[in-house]
Amino acid sequence: MRSGFFLLNTLEMKKIEHLGIAVKDLKKSNEIFSKLLNTAPYKEEAVESEGVTTSFFQVGDSKIELLQATRSDSPIAKFIEKKGEGIHHVAFNVEDIEKEIERLQEEGFELIHKQAKPGADNMLIAFLHPKSTNGMLVEICQQIVD
Amino acid sequence: MRSGFFLLNTLEMKKIEHLGIAVKDLKKSNEIFSKLLNTAPYKEEAVESEGVTTSFFQVGDSKIELLQATRSDSPIAKFIEKKGEGIHHVAFNVEDIEKEIERLQEEGFELIHKQAKPGADNMLIAFLHPKSTNGMLVEICQQIVD
Repeated sequence: MRSGFFLLNTLEMKKIEHLGIAVKDLKKSNEIFSKLLNTAPYKEEAVESEGVTTSFFQVGDSKIELLQATRSDSPIAKFIEKKGEGIHHVAFNVEDIEKEIERLQEEGFELIHKQAKPGADNMLIAFLHPKSTNGMLVEICQQIVD
Repeated sequence: MRSGFFLLNTLEMKKIEHLGIAVKDLKKSNEIFSKLLNTAPYKEEAVESEGVTTSFFQVGDSKIELLQATRSDSPIAKFIEKKGEGIHHVAFNVEDIEKEIERLQEEGFELIHKQAKPGADNMLIAFLHPKSTNGMLVEICQQIVD
C-alpha cells in the first residue's frame, strides 16, 4: 500500500461477519436456531478467556454465533442478567484490524480492546464500547491466516 | 419446483439482509455510523405505517438500517423506552416469503405477521415473535421485483 489515499479506501467494514446471540442453554437454542435457519450448526467451540461456549451457523456470507456463559462472571452471564437473552453484539470483518483500531480511535470511538486479541473461529478481535455506538456492542475481526 | 425435496432445500435464510438499530436522533446517528462504517448512508426513507424514519448503510452484502420513531406509539419508541438505543432486529432474506411463513409456523414459531406486508426498501416483510426465538426479534423479507 503506497499512498494514504489507497490506505483510506481499504479501511472499511467489509461485511457483517457474525451476529452474537446470548443464550441460556446452548443445546436448546441450537435446536431453535436449526429450525429457524433451516441448517445445523457447523461447529461448537469454547472460548475459555471469555467464559463462553459457542456454536456457529452459516447464513449466506455471515454467521450466527450463539453464546452461553460457562461461569457467572462471563460478560454473557452479566448481559443475560441485565437484558435477558437476545442479540449481544455485531461483528464486522476488517482487512487490517490494527489499522482499523487506529482509524476508529482517530474518529473518536472508544475501544474496549486497544490491541487485537484472539477470539473464537480463528479470528483476531477487538470490541468497541457501546456508549460510543448508539448502545450497539460492535466487534471488529480479522481472519487469522495460518 | 417439482418435488418436495427440492422445495425443502430452497427454504432457508439466504443471508442477513439487514440489522435494524433503534436510535433517538437519526441525524446524529447517521454521523456516528458514517464514521463507524466509513461510508455514507445511501438513502433515507419514512415508513408511515410503522411510525419510523430510516436510513440505510451498505456493508458488504448486508445493510444497516437506522430507525428513529416519528410518533410515541411507534414500536421503535416503545423499544427505546424499555431497552434504550441499540440493535432492534435482524432481517433475513428469503426467496419465497409466503412459503417461509408456512415453514416457520409448521416448525412452531409464532409469527407476528401471518401474511407478508410491504416494508421499507422495496421489501415484503414479516416479523416473528421474539419469545419463540431466544428474545431475538427476527424479520424475514423478500425483495419486491417490479
